[in-house]
Amino acid sequence: MLFFTQCFGAVLDLIHLRFQHYKAKRVFSAAGQLVCVVNPTHSLKYAPTLCAAAQTSTEQGILPPCHHHEAVHDPQLVPCMCPLFSCPWEGHLEVVVSHLRQTHHINILQGAEIVFLATDMHLPAPTDWIIMHSCLGHQFLLVLRKQEKYEGHPQFFAMMMLIGTPTQADNFTYRLELNRNQRRLKWEATPRSVLECVDSVISDGDCLVLNTSLAQLFSDNGSLAIGIAITTSKVHNSEAEM
Amino acid sequence: MLFFTQCFGAVLDLIHLRFQHYKAKRVFSAAGQLVCVVNPTHSLKYAPTLCAAAQTSTEQGILPPCHHHEAVHDPQLVPCMCPLFSCPWEGHLEVVVSHLRQTHHINILQGAEIVFLATDMHLPAPTDWIIMHSCLGHQFLLVLRKQEKYEGHPQFFAMMMLIGTPTQADNFTYRLELNRNQRRLKWEATPRSVLECVDSVISDGDCLVLNTSLAQLFSDNGSLAIGIAITTSKVHNSEAEM
Repeated sequence: MLFFTQCFGAVLDLIHLRFQHYKAKRVFSAAGQLVCVVNPTHSLKYAPTLCAAAQTSTEQGILPPCHHHEAVHDPQLVPCMCPLFSCPWEGHLEVVVSHLRQTHHINILQGAEIVFLATDMHLPAPTDWIIMHSCLGHQFLLVLRKQEKYEGHPQFFAMMMLIGTPTQADNFTYRLELNRNQRRLKWEATPRSVLECVDSVISDGDCLVLNTSLAQLFSDNGSLAIGIAITTSKVHNSEAEM
Repeated sequence: MLFFTQCFGAVLDLIHLRFQHYKAKRVFSAAGQLVCVVNPTHSLKYAPTLCAAAQTSTEQGILPPCHHHEAVHDPQLVPCMCPLFSCPWEGHLEVVVSHLRQTHHINILQGAEIVFLATDMHLPAPTDWIIMHSCLGHQFLLVLRKQEKYEGHPQFFAMMMLIGTPTQADNFTYRLELNRNQRRLKWEATPRSVLECVDSVISDGDCLVLNTSLAQLFSDNGSLAIGIAITTSKVHNSEAEM
């Protein structure tokens, strides 16, 4: 009996996913755009004992300082990006992708334009939604983080990072787009390198920032669809275009 | 001597304004775009005794509730929009423009695309930057407000409102655009009517929201240039376009 109940639950989940997928496709109407349903990664889930101090400060809504520049002597060594402040792993750029896939089961998607559908936006901070994106011969990491920079005031921060050096990152431009209820919000920027720190990107304000009411405005039934596009930007003419 | 010092100060101010104007023009390169330098209106400046209670709550970083639906019996009567929570004036839609011009010396600009250059972004909250914009046969109000919804955490809220009814407002789409340092942020939405309340627009999240780090990223020497465009939107195809 329990077996049948579980099967029925799984079928319902599948129908629900399928429905979300369909809705996201409808909103982001472009033919051939890949929609990826991304489930949240609550940041404390993987928290190891090594990060006890970091975990405590996270629980207080304050992120631990980025330990990249302090503990890592080899500048090509990066701390694990998933979820950044609770995984003690460090490694060279070349093995970041395999670590993310194998240890954290992060999906990797192909294509220049995809739709990132983050589910369960109501979950308490800190929470991360992460996917990898393979495009233009490089791997990118899309991080959506719900975080309380100020207690009782959760915000969402979305950014694209290149799994590569800052110099390589300068060759690209990414666009994040929200579109719902005749409202549209677009963020265009140069991706940051994973050698930099998510925390510093957030404190620099160099990402798409949403407060909860703005996130609700663009959410549909607790899910937020973010259209993503990456292009090369050898000649930076974004200012001249305007 | 004092006279000459003052004259010299005025000339310096003019040169500074001219320089800001030039910089904004350079960023928003489109030929013929009008750049308007908008000085801040600290919200307590005009605070009358009638609004003592409202003023107290404003000082605590909490806005008074919108009194439009409580005190105003005629739905066509609007409270003064400049600065909304400290002017006791109420009047019909038809006289809002003349009130704003005569009492508060708010500029009115012509043209479908203009650049709003808000100065002195560092001033403490609550502060408003306001202009009127005459376009497509209607008058719009652009409000940029610095406000502390959460103590110690000022945010900027930018919105376009139609000096007209909500039904008239539905016929338009406006776009606000920030562009600097190879970063670009665009907000597109249907304007709200001035018969609604700025506070409710802010609490709905139905506006461009910037936290201080994001505002700093787009500011140049304490001034924030916002490109504004208004179009008619009889057929709402923004979602299909994407």
